[in-house]
Amino acid sequence: MRTDLVVALDIGGTKIAGALVDAGGRIRVRAQRPTPAREDGETVMGAVADVLDALSGSPLWASAGAVGIGSAGPVDASAGTVSPVNVPGWRGFPLVERVHRATGGRPVTLVGDGVAMTAAEHWQGAARGHDNALCLVVSTGVGGGLVLDGRLHPGPTGNAGHIGHISVDLDGDPCACGGRGCVERIASGPHIARRALADGWRPGPDGDSSAAAVAAAARAGDPVAVASFERAARALAAGIAATATLVEVDIAVIGGGVAGAGEVLFAPLRRSLRSYATLSFVRGLTVVPALTGTDAGLLGAAAAALPRGTVH
Amino acid sequence: MRTDLVVALDIGGTKIAGALVDAGGRIRVRAQRPTPAREDGETVMGAVADVLDALSGSPLWASAGAVGIGSAGPVDASAGTVSPVNVPGWRGFPLVERVHRATGGRPVTLVGDGVAMTAAEHWQGAARGHDNALCLVVSTGVGGGLVLDGRLHPGPTGNAGHIGHISVDLDGDPCACGGRGCVERIASGPHIARRALADGWRPGPDGDSSAAAVAAAARAGDPVAVASFERAARALAAGIAATATLVEVDIAVIGGGVAGAGEVLFAPLRRSLRSYATLSFVRGLTVVPALTGTDAGLLGAAAAALPRGTVH
Repeated sequence: MRTDLVVALDIGGTKIAGALVDAGGRIRVRAQRPTPAREDGETVMGAVADVLDALSGSPLWASAGAVGIGSAGPVDASAGTVSPVNVPGWRGFPLVERVHRATGGRPVTLVGDGVAMTAAEHWQGAARGHDNALCLVVSTGVGGGLVLDGRLHPGPTGNAGHIGHISVDLDGDPCACGGRGCVERIASGPHIARRALADGWRPGPDGDSSAAAVAAAARAGDPVAVASFERAARALAAGIAATATLVEVDIAVIGGGVAGAGEVLFAPLRRSLRSYATLSFVRGLTVVPALTGTDAGLLGAAAAALPRGTVH
Repeated sequence: MRTDLVVALDIGGTKIAGALVDAGGRIRVRAQRPTPAREDGETVMGAVADVLDALSGSPLWASAGAVGIGSAGPVDASAGTVSPVNVPGWRGFPLVERVHRATGGRPVTLVGDGVAMTAAEHWQGAARGHDNALCLVVSTGVGGGLVLDGRLHPGPTGNAGHIGHISVDLDGDPCACGGRGCVERIASGPHIARRALADGWRPGPDGDSSAAAVAAAARAGDPVAVASFERAARALAAGIAATATLVEVDIAVIGGGVAGAGEVLFAPLRRSLRSYATLSFVRGLTVVPALTGTDAGLLGAAAAALPRGTVH
């Protein structure tokens, strides 16, 4: 019986995904349910239980030794609770205890979704082999996570690496978090689109005004679209440089929908980074796209739960 | 023979201090020389050798097992070299190798001065008992260091915690480091004084236009002096909040001459922190003055060299 098989849960505002993952990073069994995000907390937990039930039907279930959960934040790993912004029925919900009971007393590790994505990229993606790395998800929001000294650094509550809510513009626009000039307030997909529209960019005949549409316009040379991505890139560069200057990471890995814009984002990001990552020990910092794709959440949750030393 | 006695060196642009420090944090023997900062590299090394010679005259010298160095930066702990901004004769100077040879082959640990101060505050100062802490020195420059998961986090090159050169104002004034809107560019003593003078504050009859004089004016109610400290506090708050949001520290300890301004700095700093440290897991962050004073460099160098587990 292999004990280096784990149960992985990836909990977001849209779907609850589960898997049995082995120490080689292979997903052996999958299950998924939509998140009943507008329902009460017990109904949401019911969907988690359904996913676990589906996984427990596998003959491999008995060999799975531990459970890893990557959840939309905020999470509190020290209390074992989650309060995902987009799941109002869960506020301080004791997810760790509930999953512990639902899985026959298995040990449960909880991390935020940015930390989970980072664990996945360090295990199997672009941060592999890097002892000090920052991984970002640039999408509807901006999240992230850190690898320090060769190990995931979730922090005491599982929220470390929250680069979306550091201020890079102390007099800047108010952010939904209550701060000002946060990286997310400038660089998230919705804010890229908002800025382009405010500055005069207009969607095409299909009416698509998403950041992806702005990216397409930027690729076609639209100067307002280009400028909106350059502004996002500048904020990301300032945040990434700040992180490297604070904890000495040598690589920043960027995933999420906005990273799909490719060079429209990455070219100005690399250029801006030279303006902010100026000290000798951060000048070698590189920025690359993420590799683990849509399974990042499951792989990262698994990586967080596998015994240290198992994950290479 | 006690082997938990170490040689500590604190190397700055003004003086080179040395000591034999025991595992209880007591300074048993001291030596000091002025730094011949404008001389060639070998002359500066000669002053270091003089300090070591003076220490080696002590009967305790034979019991000292290792050497810790805290040096003005930049340092490169991985290469064992230092390039202090204010000691132009040392550029990539192989200080670790030279001290190793000058001390009969003792093992040498090198960290930056901000990291050393942090080690001292974690060992004997205000960060004692905190597993995750940021320590800052706010003076002519702004430096810092991190304790993460209960241990000093120097980073691969010994420079982690360089909070003075993270940008909190991405469109802000150019900084000497090549960046823009760095914390140091807004919050260092010289910039507090510069801003007060530019906004109309005038020194008293003694002509003192230092940050300490601006602090005295602020205490007396001068609104321009108050505003300059409030601006510095705001930049420090944004930088401290960014650090906590990235790595989950629960305390920020502030030393250095500007911290001597007391509540003129700390009151607006605590107020501003509420505007930037907004996420649930950083709201409990506290800010306090440093305790270790002028021996912080020596104590921190000692702490960095003492065997792990020795330092409580």
